[in-house]
Amino acid sequence: MPPRGWAPCMSLKVAVNGYGTIGKRVADAVRLQKDMTLVGVAKTKPGFEARRAMEKGYPVFLAGDGKKADFDAAGIPTAGTLQELLRSVDVVVDCTPEKVGAANKALYEEAKVAAVWQGGEKASVADRSFSALANYTSCLGARKVRVVSCNTTGLSRAAAVLRERFGVEHWEATLVRRAADPGESKRGPINGILPTMTLPSHHGPDVRTIFPDLPIATSAVVVPTTLMHVHVNHVRLSHPPSSGSDVMAAFRTTPRFVMFRASDRMEGTPQVIEWARDLGRSRNDVMENVLWEEGLKLEGSDLYFFQAIHQESIVVPENIDVLRAMFQLETDPRRSIERTDQALGILRVGA
Amino acid sequence: MPPRGWAPCMSLKVAVNGYGTIGKRVADAVRLQKDMTLVGVAKTKPGFEARRAMEKGYPVFLAGDGKKADFDAAGIPTAGTLQELLRSVDVVVDCTPEKVGAANKALYEEAKVAAVWQGGEKASVADRSFSALANYTSCLGARKVRVVSCNTTGLSRAAAVLRERFGVEHWEATLVRRAADPGESKRGPINGILPTMTLPSHHGPDVRTIFPDLPIATSAVVVPTTLMHVHVNHVRLSHPPSSGSDVMAAFRTTPRFVMFRASDRMEGTPQVIEWARDLGRSRNDVMENVLWEEGLKLEGSDLYFFQAIHQESIVVPENIDVLRAMFQLETDPRRSIERTDQALGILRVGA
Repeated sequence: MPPRGWAPCMSLKVAVNGYGTIGKRVADAVRLQKDMTLVGVAKTKPGFEARRAMEKGYPVFLAGDGKKADFDAAGIPTAGTLQELLRSVDVVVDCTPEKVGAANKALYEEAKVAAVWQGGEKASVADRSFSALANYTSCLGARKVRVVSCNTTGLSRAAAVLRERFGVEHWEATLVRRAADPGESKRGPINGILPTMTLPSHHGPDVRTIFPDLPIATSAVVVPTTLMHVHVNHVRLSHPPSSGSDVMAAFRTTPRFVMFRASDRMEGTPQVIEWARDLGRSRNDVMENVLWEEGLKLEGSDLYFFQAIHQESIVVPENIDVLRAMFQLETDPRRSIERTDQALGILRVGA
Repeated sequence: MPPRGWAPCMSLKVAVNGYGTIGKRVADAVRLQKDMTLVGVAKTKPGFEARRAMEKGYPVFLAGDGKKADFDAAGIPTAGTLQELLRSVDVVVDCTPEKVGAANKALYEEAKVAAVWQGGEKASVADRSFSALANYTSCLGARKVRVVSCNTTGLSRAAAVLRERFGVEHWEATLVRRAADPGESKRGPINGILPTMTLPSHHGPDVRTIFPDLPIATSAVVVPTTLMHVHVNHVRLSHPPSSGSDVMAAFRTTPRFVMFRASDRMEGTPQVIEWARDLGRSRNDVMENVLWEEGLKLEGSDLYFFQAIHQESIVVPENIDVLRAMFQLETDPRRSIERTDQALGILRVGA
């Protein structure tokens, strides 16, 4: 195990705790950054994902109640325990399941490492919540930060654009959520629609961890798909432009947005994912907010628009930016975003 | 074929043209009414549904370019042509696919029969659009009426309650629509979400064929389920009651609404349909607007509520009421609704 300080001095030493849907993507993304080093990943149980980490050359550490014997039996060598990993890094990105992250907080404090949590945790787990386009600079030098969830990231990115350019008087959003990720087999429904019975849903207050005064009300339903969420938005703008194409231009010229045309055989989320597959994107990830020209309409001050959000990957670039902000590797948000996006191959297709 | 006037004089003679999802249900429903007689159904092609009509004893007539030889080959005797059927009835309920209904208009006018169309047709096909709780009396004596679509019926019923009791200042609805009916095999998506790219969607204007001044804006997405649509509603009430339970009481005491509790293991549309199956409902039909106690929340004047709409059957009772209104078999909407619901076994579970 490399001792603390082993990596070149300009390279931030990063641990990833949890190697599921988010963790494996964050680990890959860290590896692609010139100013970061992935020291290791931690996992409680062996399996095909842990084996793939090994095959990629990522040192695998034992997390939680993980047993060395189980990993040995699976033919996956372990490099030590999570505690040992934490002693060799500057920061840990916690990608464990909801609530496990909060339980890990004491461990991170004990090891005196900075920590990043995911949006499944309550905002109170960290000192700040983060969304790169919205509040990067407010997290400069922070030691405990939560990257907001996929839905909140998608809404916050859009809010960053609309607030700054046109002002938001009122925002109404229905979140049509995917039931399970593609690699899951136990979640449902596979036929049916489940309303999320909390009204309004928790997503509005969660967006307000980023924009405290944003007048947004959200509702959610869960539907039988694995590909992406879709947000149905109706925003009343304070200072509407004269035409919807001005709003489109605002999105187009902002990083992490792509704009498609439905008439280009891009009818919905199946085609978006097929596009990502054709592009050769790793795991067909779509880290951008996806909008459609026909799916955006301005009527006076009323803006209607759809956006699709790839729940598995949209927070990955934000997990990189947050590290640069916390360690002040970059103080200008736009430059961090540019570096992240270049390393991850995020395009601006609509631009 | 019975000649015109064959049925007892108090019994309205009804033809059903089209015997698919809606037609077969309307035919069954007409048969269950004491003041109506089903003279026959018309269909263009034989198949298991036409055979079932025969088995039920419904005279089957040849519609459109349907060929007697095809029916003969399938062992389904035909009683004549649609034109002949039309000569023996007072009214035809057109349940043919979208746009075919409009094409049939000349035929109905030539036969001098009154006609009812479904919501797939444009409002202009008829003299009036109909929703029983909303505008029954305005259709008294009308000869050409369109029963609005499943989604519009669901919204109009809810609007009838909310407008009358509390006033509607603004209504925002997202329609989460089923991709296909259970008996269809060619429609999709089976994984993915398709935004309806018309913004706002056509449903708002369609509701205004019933309530011309209702300030409603709708958006829609299509999702991979066959069971029911779900409407996500946010309504700003003009004269809000002090508590959400007053709104619930308003729905509960109105026919064609059922109110479930999510905590009663009624999480979403799969359980609603299972409930209908357990109840022994014909084809597991749910002709009521389905609401949840936990899925209704009043915050000041802001009312949030979900409602599930069974796309296959919700318009069936309205197709009966419209006949009573047109022929003035009943001038009081509540009494027609009561007669229809009693005959169809529609409960008021939440009452």
